[in-house]
Parts: sequence; structure tokens; C-alpha cells
Amino acid sequence: MSKYNLAVVGATGAVGQEIIEILEERKFPVDNLKLIASKKSEGKKITFLNRKIKVESIENGIFEDIDIALFSIDSNLSKKYAPQAVKEGAVVIDNSNAFRMDDSVPLVVPEINANKINEHQGIIANPNCSTIQLVMAIKPIFKKYGLKRVIVNTYQAVSGTGKRAISELEQQIKDYIDKNEIKSEVYPYQISFNLLPHIDEFQENKYTKEEMKVVKETRKILDDKEIPITATAVRVPVFNGHGESVNIETEVSYLIDDIKNSIDKMENVKLVDNINENKYPMPIMVENEDEVMVGRIRRDYSKKNALNMWIVANNLRKGAALNAVQIAEKMI
Amino acid sequence: MSKYNLAVVGATGAVGQEIIEILEERKFPVDNLKLIASKKSEGKKITFLNRKIKVESIENGIFEDIDIALFSIDSNLSKKYAPQAVKEGAVVIDNSNAFRMDDSVPLVVPEINANKINEHQGIIANPNCSTIQLVMAIKPIFKKYGLKRVIVNTYQAVSGTGKRAISELEQQIKDYIDKNEIKSEVYPYQISFNLLPHIDEFQENKYTKEEMKVVKETRKILDDKEIPITATAVRVPVFNGHGESVNIETEVSYLIDDIKNSIDKMENVKLVDNINENKYPMPIMVENEDEVMVGRIRRDYSKKNALNMWIVANNLRKGAALNAVQIAEKMI
Repeated sequence: MSKYNLAVVGATGAVGQEIIEILEERKFPVDNLKLIASKKSEGKKITFLNRKIKVESIENGIFEDIDIALFSIDSNLSKKYAPQAVKEGAVVIDNSNAFRMDDSVPLVVPEINANKINEHQGIIANPNCSTIQLVMAIKPIFKKYGLKRVIVNTYQAVSGTGKRAISELEQQIKDYIDKNEIKSEVYPYQISFNLLPHIDEFQENKYTKEEMKVVKETRKILDDKEIPITATAVRVPVFNGHGESVNIETEVSYLIDDIKNSIDKMENVKLVDNINENKYPMPIMVENEDEVMVGRIRRDYSKKNALNMWIVANNLRKGAALNAVQIAEKMI
Repeated sequence: MSKYNLAVVGATGAVGQEIIEILEERKFPVDNLKLIASKKSEGKKITFLNRKIKVESIENGIFEDIDIALFSIDSNLSKKYAPQAVKEGAVVIDNSNAFRMDDSVPLVVPEINANKINEHQGIIANPNCSTIQLVMAIKPIFKKYGLKRVIVNTYQAVSGTGKRAISELEQQIKDYIDKNEIKSEVYPYQISFNLLPHIDEFQENKYTKEEMKVVKETRKILDDKEIPITATAVRVPVFNGHGESVNIETEVSYLIDDIKNSIDKMENVKLVDNINENKYPMPIMVENEDEVMVGRIRRDYSKKNALNMWIVANNLRKGAALNAVQIAEKMI
């Protein structure tokens, strides 16, 4: 079996660390692993398969012996360094927003459109966390009944912002208990015991970038530019695990049990829907979970062929690191 | 000016205590105030306008000298004691779910249907917290453009459940910090750092009672049994202040600026919608706030005549206690 030289770029970040763990867990055939981060993490040591690996910072030629580089850094930095990695011979799987809507870049959720991977010209984009769990759950409905309209409301955890946001929520709840003043640096306002209807920057059309990512990326992954979608993205004081409440109108009439069966049969999606026993998806269930969980599936009586459902997934794993590693697995 | 004998039933609860504060704040013309609670609170003293009032428990004849009894107790207890209060001569303003959908009981949000108050036969019902902030925000749209469809997603604070839920969230975050086991008694699962897509009991139709309250009560208050509405209700780890993300389809085409103006002109509703300056409604803004706040108003491009908006209100005040006191004010 062949082994590959990998680089994780952003190795000390929340997603980067999940990538390293997942490469271990899934026994990815790694020959040499380079861990790359910013200058300030240089020299730090991270354990991978009982080896201690020194964190390096980016310099010319660093990707020359790399087969696959898994990027999870800021969008602007991806724009700067991904082309360098490609030039030096690596294939980049990029977790940022930098290339997702680029026509020459495949945007891949392996369970849905792994066939696009081979079309890459050096870069493959990993979708946004809130998009991944959405498309995983609605793909079976799209395929069988068509999507006439999709309305998404997100309940997003702070881990999606990164490690600093996790620390900020933790510090704020400590300060609340100690009756200290609550300070906000990562978010514009306090996130503890609060709701922020504001994720990523506001756009000209009054939507946030996050909301438009859900709209545009979903269409690209499902390969249908016409699907009518709208989204509202809200940050909630949860450490990890995004929730999504989704209202769907199908093109043709559906049977609710068939919708449930189709979702349950979808690879890496789990139906958690037994209200008589209080079984429904929740963030606390997905801490070590790779599957997307779907529940509260029920007919929406306000409109013909409409339904409501509730989706929860681990945004650091299937929403980011795991999906990236799955892409790498499909490549090799 | 006449003064009235009032009773607050459930005086030691989260809503009961807000009622007492609001009666003080708004200088309600109180002659005598009876504070009523369960046996275990009997004898406790609560201050009202510098008087110390002893908490009593319900017994026969307790409402005989009472003009208005403000009930905020469990639905089953309301069913038992409200008829007694009416028989003994009081008018009951009931905050529970017991009588809301009863045809002979007015369900009132004073800014919308104060005219219904006089039709009462002894009991006036106070709507559910998530309904009140919704109807306050959508009434101007309903009036001017009609409501073809309304899709509501709630982000509800624990104070809506009551004092024990507030304590449970507080205890859970302390236990998290102290690395103790997290215990749940009020909710079926941990609420700290989690999301519960489950508020009140599940119904035959797979919706929760809370979700169906939003549907049915909104129709009754807006006096239109046909409005197509669907709701998903989610409990979030916020102490106080409910959020609601609402998607609306109007009957006729609208101008977004006119929608904003109509909402801003609505009595006791405040437009907080300046994304360039990061101004949008949040729970931390409504701690001492009586107004319902609306923002993030924007066209939904997935459907003709559709729009999205975000509503936040203090669920203990406008969502419960304040609305009850406003009803009493309109009565006298």
C-alpha cells in the first residue's frame, strides 16, 4: 500500500488539531507529516502516532515533497499560500472560503459528489460547516422529491470561530460566576447567555457572508443553481456542535416515513427521531461523533409538500476536519 | 382616582416577582395587594412599595375582596383555582395555557386586541411568551400586506421555564467549571452548552405543545383562523430573553423600507436594524426592556414577497408579567 507525505497547515488551530487526530484514528497511510502554523507556534511539538513532530512555519519550498496539504487557516492566508503549495507540487484541500465558489475548484462532500474530486486543478475546497451538515441531510430529499424551497436557521457553536472563541466563552462564564466584568474580543458582543444573529461579515444584500455561504455552496454541491434557499445564521453559547432547523418544500408530494427512511439510509447520516422517548439530535451527543444527526422530522401543515427537521453535527469533524480527510481518502 | 384590590397568584415565581415589580414601576393604583403562593412559601415576606406583605396560600374566600387576580402558576392549578377566584368575585388574568384557546376567554395583547377585554366572562388569558413577541412584530405586516405564510424558529431562554430552570443552568455552568458531573432535573438533558429542540410536551402531530401554542394563539390574537403558520421551538442556554427567527410571505408585494417603518411605528416595538454598526436585537439588550426588538429585516430572495426578520424580547416582561399588567391597566 502506498503511503503519502501530508502537510497540515494551521496545525495548532481547532480544526487543524482535529485533522491530526482524525488522520490517526482513520489510519490514513501517512509517510511523512509536516505540521505548519504561524511563526508564533514554530518549534512547538505535537504528537502524531507516538512521534513528536515540530511545528514549522511556511517558507519557500516547504511543500516540495508534499503530496496532499490540508489547509485550515484564514481565507486571506489560504489565498496567499495555497497557490504556492500547488506550484511546489502538492494538492491542496482547503477549508477556508477562499476558493469555494471558484468554478475551477471542486467543492466536495464525499458522500454527495466525490466524483468531482478528479476535476481539480490543484485545489479542492472543503465546504462551510453549516453547509456540510445541511446537504448531508437534504440530499436524499433532493434526489427523490426535489427541493422547491429550503429555509435554514442555524444555531452555531463557538468552536466554528476557532480556539480563541472557545476560550472567550469559557472566560465569560467564569467571569459571570466570579461576578467580574464580562469582556468580548473575538465577538462584537458577549456570547455567554446571549445570541448573536451575526456570523461573518454583513453583505450588500443585508445577509451575512455565512448565510450566503449556505445558499451558494448548497447549490454548488447539489449541482443545481436554481434551488431557492434562504438562511439566517445565529451564534449560540454552545462550545461545539451546530444545530440547524430546516423547513423544506418538496417539488412533489412525499411520504414522511419514506423521508425518514431515505435520510437514515444516507451514508454517515443517522436518524435520531423518537419523540416518545425524548430522542432528538443535540450538540452534547456529537462530541465524538462523525455522523450527521437528523430528527424532529414532521409535516409542515402550513404549506403543501412542506416539512420541518432538526439537524445537529460536530462542526469541527464532519463540518470541517473529517470532511477534509475524507476528501484526501477518496483522492488516493 | 379609584384604587383596586389585587392578588398575585404564584407570587414567588419568576413571572410573579416580575408582576410585583411592574405594578410598582408603573404605579398601578393598588389599594390592597394579596400575594399568594404554594403552602411551602406561606409566611414569606415580599416588599411592595415599602410595605412588607406576607405570602398566603389559597383557601376558600381568599379572593372575596379581590378585584383583579393575576395568576402565574401551573396550567393544572390555574384550571383548579381560577374558577374559584371568579366565583368569589375577582376577574382573573391568567398566564397559563389553561384557558387560552377557550372560545369564551379573550386572549389579549393590549397593543393588538385590547377591544376583546370587555368580552370576558371572568377570565382573560395572557398569551404564551413566544407568541406575544411574534404577534407584536408581525401585526403591522399582517395589517398592511397580509400573511400568506409564517415560519417561526425560536431560541428560547430558560427563564421561560421558571426559577428552577435558571438555577439549573447556573448550577450546570458552575459544575462545568469545577469539573463536577453535570446533573439535569428540570430539563430531560443538560441545557448548558446544549440545544434542546423540545419545549413542553410532544403532541400527536409530532409538534410540541409550545410550537402549537405559537400557531394557534397567533391566529386567535390576529383574529384569522386561516393564517398558515409553522413553528420549531428550541431551548438555548440563555438566562433571559427569547430570540425568534421569522420567515414571512406576504399576500401582496411589499417595500422593505415600509415594512421597517411600520414595525418601528408599532406601539412598544423598537426597530434595531443597522447592520453597518452591528446593531441588531440580542437577549443581553432586553434585561430591563419592555419593548419588543426587531432587526435583521431583509428580503428573502428564495420566494416572491418573502422576508426574514429577527425578534428579541424579555420573555418575563412583555412575554408574561408586563402584558398581564397592561391587560389589568386597560380593564380599569
